[in-house]
Amino acid sequence: MHTRTDVRRIVEERWNSLTKPPGSLGRLETLVADLAEMQGTPEPKLDRKAMYIFCGDHGSTVEGTSAWPSEVTAQMVRNFLRGGAAISVLGKSTGLELTVVDCGVLGPPIAGAVNRKIAQGTRNFVQEPAMTRAQAQQALDHGAALAGECQADIAGVGEMGIGNTASASALISAFTGLTPADTVGHGAGVSAEGLLRKRAAVEAALTRHKAAFADPLDTLAAVGGFEIATMAGFVLESAALRRPIVVDGFITSAAVLAARALSPDVVNYLFYSHCSAERAHRRVLEILGAEPILDLGMRLGEGSGAALAINLIAQAHGLYTNMATFEQAAVAESKESAL
Amino acid sequence: MHTRTDVRRIVEERWNSLTKPPGSLGRLETLVADLAEMQGTPEPKLDRKAMYIFCGDHGSTVEGTSAWPSEVTAQMVRNFLRGGAAISVLGKSTGLELTVVDCGVLGPPIAGAVNRKIAQGTRNFVQEPAMTRAQAQQALDHGAALAGECQADIAGVGEMGIGNTASASALISAFTGLTPADTVGHGAGVSAEGLLRKRAAVEAALTRHKAAFADPLDTLAAVGGFEIATMAGFVLESAALRRPIVVDGFITSAAVLAARALSPDVVNYLFYSHCSAERAHRRVLEILGAEPILDLGMRLGEGSGAALAINLIAQAHGLYTNMATFEQAAVAESKESAL
Repeated sequence: MHTRTDVRRIVEERWNSLTKPPGSLGRLETLVADLAEMQGTPEPKLDRKAMYIFCGDHGSTVEGTSAWPSEVTAQMVRNFLRGGAAISVLGKSTGLELTVVDCGVLGPPIAGAVNRKIAQGTRNFVQEPAMTRAQAQQALDHGAALAGECQADIAGVGEMGIGNTASASALISAFTGLTPADTVGHGAGVSAEGLLRKRAAVEAALTRHKAAFADPLDTLAAVGGFEIATMAGFVLESAALRRPIVVDGFITSAAVLAARALSPDVVNYLFYSHCSAERAHRRVLEILGAEPILDLGMRLGEGSGAALAINLIAQAHGLYTNMATFEQAAVAESKESAL
Repeated sequence: MHTRTDVRRIVEERWNSLTKPPGSLGRLETLVADLAEMQGTPEPKLDRKAMYIFCGDHGSTVEGTSAWPSEVTAQMVRNFLRGGAAISVLGKSTGLELTVVDCGVLGPPIAGAVNRKIAQGTRNFVQEPAMTRAQAQQALDHGAALAGECQADIAGVGEMGIGNTASASALISAFTGLTPADTVGHGAGVSAEGLLRKRAAVEAALTRHKAAFADPLDTLAAVGGFEIATMAGFVLESAALRRPIVVDGFITSAAVLAARALSPDVVNYLFYSHCSAERAHRRVLEILGAEPILDLGMRLGEGSGAALAINLIAQAHGLYTNMATFEQAAVAESKESAL
């Protein structure tokens, strides 16, 4: 096994041997160095690329926190599986193996989704903890087991769950100290009045569950979601297995904050795909020290930003693997080297 | 034929009928609206995607303006054609039809390249005009003819030419009034001393040819390059034919400034792929009112940034074309619409 420093040096040497000015592919070069460092080899593999979409419902929607009815979660799960959703289309064009995980969607199990349903939606965090500590642990375990079964060389993580931006905002406030005024945004399009209800709900939850925030698992249980906790478990185990994870947007970053609180080393195995248009995402990325690859004003979730970033990482990897060297192409090298 | 406003409205209506919150695909939605507006139809086509790489040598390299010997231009043309260059790899993975145009490379015609050689490199613009006015017009005509023959639904434009960032800097200064201190950068990696030589050469050229800058064609002749002028002609005719053009980086933006000076309407048919790490590119994009799609610190040219952007535009187009509507997927619509 190479050391991290060795791997980066060897990757940089290979990039500099390819027919282009040194460093001229910019971020594409560092993305491959990051990938190599995560996988622990200067010849990183990207033969299999996966996307996991973690889905679950939220009891706090009774507070009027979302513009959409909760039944849309199950409807969208079916849409993912039938190929009609954004992530279905992007997954196909990018060659992603798509896994849809039902972590706690309202209603019966859905054919084609991996059933890891913990309950029919969380409880309303304004009134009580969203889930028990045992359920939070169960979700983490589910995610870890899925990561252990995954055979892909890289995995994107996305989510679906009506009401889950409220949960993500509460988690982000709990883990970072940002106030709900900072962390609560329009999500999937809530109205101005809805935004006030959503902010009030998150404020009430933060006040009610304050004592839980001393412990990451208690925090997840108090204001998290089944899909967010399962994703956190998936991210934790993926990092332990040195499998690079491509983070999606706002809600995914809440799962990352939870995973980081449980094991700070996870941040070494993450690509941050994009900066979402959702309020506070840029702030959260700054707190994580993340440099998002794309900034396209997206705010969909589902792993849609992660899919685009995997495509870019794959293109960078293709360049690293398939470009000719100066020697192979009989191209003269630079007379000077300044940059 | 729909009016521009009609087209944008119809595209927006279709986006809003698809299974996602309105506007949540951000820039991907506006990219398709732009594409539709350029093509003049709410059902834009992207069946065929092309990349044109315009190549030429520069007499001003005798001033020591580049870190690379001029023979690298022809060597890289062969590398493009043999599949070893960055644009070869990206072109293949994105399904681009690649055309390499020899607009004035030193040496004999190169098998596989389209021969539109005007001369064996330009003259040294520090001492005399880079080309005659007739040659500049010939290059524009070559570019226009190539655009007329092109069958693609979208075309990226890139370039190769040792010494051509000096020419681009001079053109940008001439067209925008920015000084060489603003517009001259490290290009393909010139040293600190080389940068001083390059800046001095551009300053000398700007002083010598000042009178030419009253006229765009004279400007191109004085300090341009055969590949830059041919590209400008290609861009002009593509716009006339309503074929969307995806602009690459710094040198391409000089060709765009020339084309815009000849016909301001061209800017309505351009996608700006990325912001290059080359000094002054961000400034030039601001002057053009451009919003680059990507910002990855690249500074390679060849059309490499344009290829990545075409890939993203194609993914946006795929979403627009292939996603299910709320009706098709039996997904409930939002109860509110705030954004």
